[in-house]
This record gives sequence, structure tokens and C-alpha cells, in this order.
Amino acid sequence: MNKQFKLLIVFTLAFAFNVVAQNKNPKYIKVKTGFLMVLRQGDDVLSNIEELAEKEKIPSANFTGMGFVNAKFGFFNFETKEYEPKDFSKVELASMNGTIAWQKGKVSIHAHGVVTDKTFAAFGGHLLSATVDTGSLEILITVHDKKLERKLEDPPGANVLQLGGN
Amino acid sequence: MNKQFKLLIVFTLAFAFNVVAQNKNPKYIKVKTGFLMVLRQGDDVLSNIEELAEKEKIPSANFTGMGFVNAKFGFFNFETKEYEPKDFSKVELASMNGTIAWQKGKVSIHAHGVVTDKTFAAFGGHLLSATVDTGSLEILITVHDKKLERKLEDPPGANVLQLGGN
Amino acid sequence: MNKQFKLLIVFTLAFAFNVVAQNKNPKYIKVKTGFLMVLRQGDDVLSNIEELAEKEKIPSANFTGMGFVNAKFGFFNFETKEYEPKDFSKVELASMNGTIAWQKGKVSIHAHGVVTDKTFAAFGGHLLSATVDTGSLEILITVHDKKLERKLEDPPGANVLQLGGN
Repeated sequence: MNKQFKLLIVFTLAFAFNVVAQNKNPKYIKVKTGFLMVLRQGDDVLSNIEELAEKEKIPSANFTGMGFVNAKFGFFNFETKEYEPKDFSKVELASMNGTIAWQKGKVSIHAHGVVTDKTFAAFGGHLLSATVDTGSLEILITVHDKKLERKLEDPPGANVLQLGGN
Repeated sequence: MNKQFKLLIVFTLAFAFNVVAQNKNPKYIKVKTGFLMVLRQGDDVLSNIEELAEKEKIPSANFTGMGFVNAKFGFFNFETKEYEPKDFSKVELASMNGTIAWQKGKVSIHAHGVVTDKTFAAFGGHLLSATVDTGSLEILITVHDKKLERKLEDPPGANVLQLGGN
Repeated sequence: MNKQFKLLIVFTLAFAFNVVAQNKNPKYIKVKTGFLMVLRQGDDVLSNIEELAEKEKIPSANFTGMGFVNAKFGFFNFETKEYEPKDFSKVELASMNGTIAWQKGKVSIHAHGVVTDKTFAAFGGHLLSATVDTGSLEILITVHDKKLERKLEDPPGANVLQLGGN
């Protein structure tokens, strides 16, 4: 066998193994009230929820979650109109509450969370991003049947979930 | 046109605009599992949930929520039998968990919450009251079909949700 | 009446009263999305959820809760592979989020929580155990129809909820 052929076999096996692994443990399954998602180390939390919303054409949803993560929170500064961020590494995600809607054709996620460190002190707020660390993240997505949009309202200068008339 | 007639037109237009605005963005909509509510700056959180429960004749429910609020928490002092309160202004409501039941013919809400400030430190407990500040508040109400009552039980000297026999 | 007969009557009445009391306030009732549970002072939180899962043959579930508890949290030390615990007494359970699954034939509960003390400071993380203190604990269990298992995955050396292929 030449080197190229060996490489082909290695890639084919790697691909097949990956497919089997994914089939055995899909990232989410359908449940009566919506979807149950389990993410693993390295998975990006918000982009996985976005992908789910796009693939499954979720009109709108609420979700709750908990796990072990690296999280970036942001506190909105109404003068600069920007989120002032802070990172928390290797923390328990004690709670996550969020909603899925749409904005200008794209999935729009709004999530709040509370994380706790090895001293058990709690921190949190508006979740800008998060990745799963050593452990997992379990998310329950409760799907609604009405398509909802988020829209910038000023005041207060924030994106607000619109419940009607869009 | 006399002044009174001008005023009448102004008030009529203001009223009409208000109705249209409310129709466009009702405070809540029906979803499969119950109701989804979005409150805006100045809205009182607990009284809006109370109104929903009365108008929609909710037998009992659980709810979760998150947003940006001014919140008053209370820690129960079992000696004085009173809540010792503390206010938190312009904070993220990282989580809210509560239940809706009835007590002596009136809606009875029990809600706990966690808020976070611009340092991301977390505080919370039993929610006595809250108003939405710059931003919004999104609440999911999961409605149950059995009417439930809350009753003062002593001990422990607290209102407890009754699951049967009322 | 002799002493033995009196004792028999006392025990019979005590038993009957206990049965009536339990009927009047069962620990849980069925609701559309699953079960609603109310625990009282002295009740162990995780063992009551375990009993519910066994009795009602719950395939898998998510739950949320809030109340007033004594809680033991643990932060996982990946070097010693053990949870380092800390107790919090007479605290509000501001939020609890968890899942019910199965592992080697037994109910497997994974729960995170946030507690707050009389200064309203928040603490929390992975919940090792909790008992209800002066007050109650209200839990909503959202039941899924697919039986799910938890399995030790190494890395990361943690029990992970398996969504397929078991």
C-alpha cells in the first residue's frame, strides 16, 4: 500500500467512527414538550442551540439548562451601549434560563445564567457565550408553535421579544 | 374647532394608538404548555402575573422568568414572623422560579429569584416585589389543570401549597 | 380495658390519622406535563424524587424547584475524583434544576441549585443532598417518554446523560 492509500483508510475509518459515535449519542432528541440536548466538553452552547433552532425550524421556545462550563457574562452599559464582559472558567452552571426567537431571518437567543466556583460563590447575568468544560451540559427546550421575533426597542435600547403583530 | 373638541380628538387618537399598540404587543400569548408573557419598563411583575391568573382563570401553574429589574427580596424571620426586606436596583434577573395557586379566593404567588449586578455577583431569595427596569422580562407560565390552594401551616408558620383534599 | 388494648387503639388511631393526612396532602400529584411535588420540613429532597421516579416508572425527566432547605453542595475535584462538600443551613433554595435518568437499574438524579442566606448572598452548584427546613419545597417534574441512561464517560470522568443507542 502506498502512503496515500493508507491515509485514505485512516480518514475513512475516522469518519465512520465519528458517524457511529454521533448516531449513538445524538446531541439532542425530541421529547413531548420539545427537545432535550446534551452537550460535551468543547461544545459551544449558544451555537448548538442556534443550530437546533434552524434545523428543527423552531418557531419560538424557552429553555433551561445546567452543567459545567466556561462562561462569559456581559452587563449592559446604557451609556456606551455595549456589554462589559467578564469570563468565568471551570464553573458549575447552576442555572440557565433563555428564550429562542428570530430577528431579521436569524435565530435570536437570549440567555441568563448563574455559575458557581469551587468556593460555591455565585455569579451570573446575561450570558454572552459559553463552552462546556470537563463534564456535560443538559438543556431542555420547550417549543412553542407561534413564530416570534425580537426587535430593537429604543427606549430602552434593548432587543425585546415581540408577542404579536409581526 | 373649539378647544374642547381639539382635546377630544387628542384623547381619542391617544386611546386608539394605545389600543393598537396593545394589540400589536399584548403582554402575553397562549402557548401549548400555558402562557408566554413579556413585560416592559415600569411593569410590576407580580401584579401582572396575578392579573393573568385571574383573567385566564388559571387553576394552578409553575413559572420561570428572566429579565432586567428592580427587585425586593425578603428573608423570613421566624421570631418576628416578618420578612426582612432588601432592595436591588437595576439588576439582571438571572432566574425566577415560582408557582401560582389560590388562597381565600385570591391569587397566591410564590416566587424565588436570583439577581446579578454589574460586578456579576449574585443575590436573591424570596421575591417580595419587582418592577421591570431598562429592558424587559420574559416569563413562561406552565399551566396545570387542577385548582390548588395555599394554606397557612403552623408549624412551620408558612403558607404551603396543598396538593389534595381542599 | 387493659393497657395493651389501649395501646392498640392509640396506634390504630395514629395510623388512621396518618393515612387521612397523607390522602389530604399527598407528596405529589399528576399534572399535564408530569408531576407536581410539595415536600415539608424534614423531607429529604433527592430520595423523594427517587421514590417518585421508581413508583411512577418515569422514563426520564427534567425538574425545577424552589423552597427553604438545608443543602450540601459539592465541587468536583478532578485530581482526587471526589466532590469537596460544603453545607448551607436554613437557606432559601432560589432555584433548582435537575434531570432524572437511570444508571445500572437505579434512578440517577443530577441536580444543581442556588441558595441564598439572610444577607441575600447566593451560593450553589452541584447538589449532593438537601432536606426541607422551616417551610416547604415545590418541585415541577416534566416527564419525557423515552427511557434514558446515565453512563460514566472518561474523559471527562463524569456521568453523562446518554441520548441514544443504549
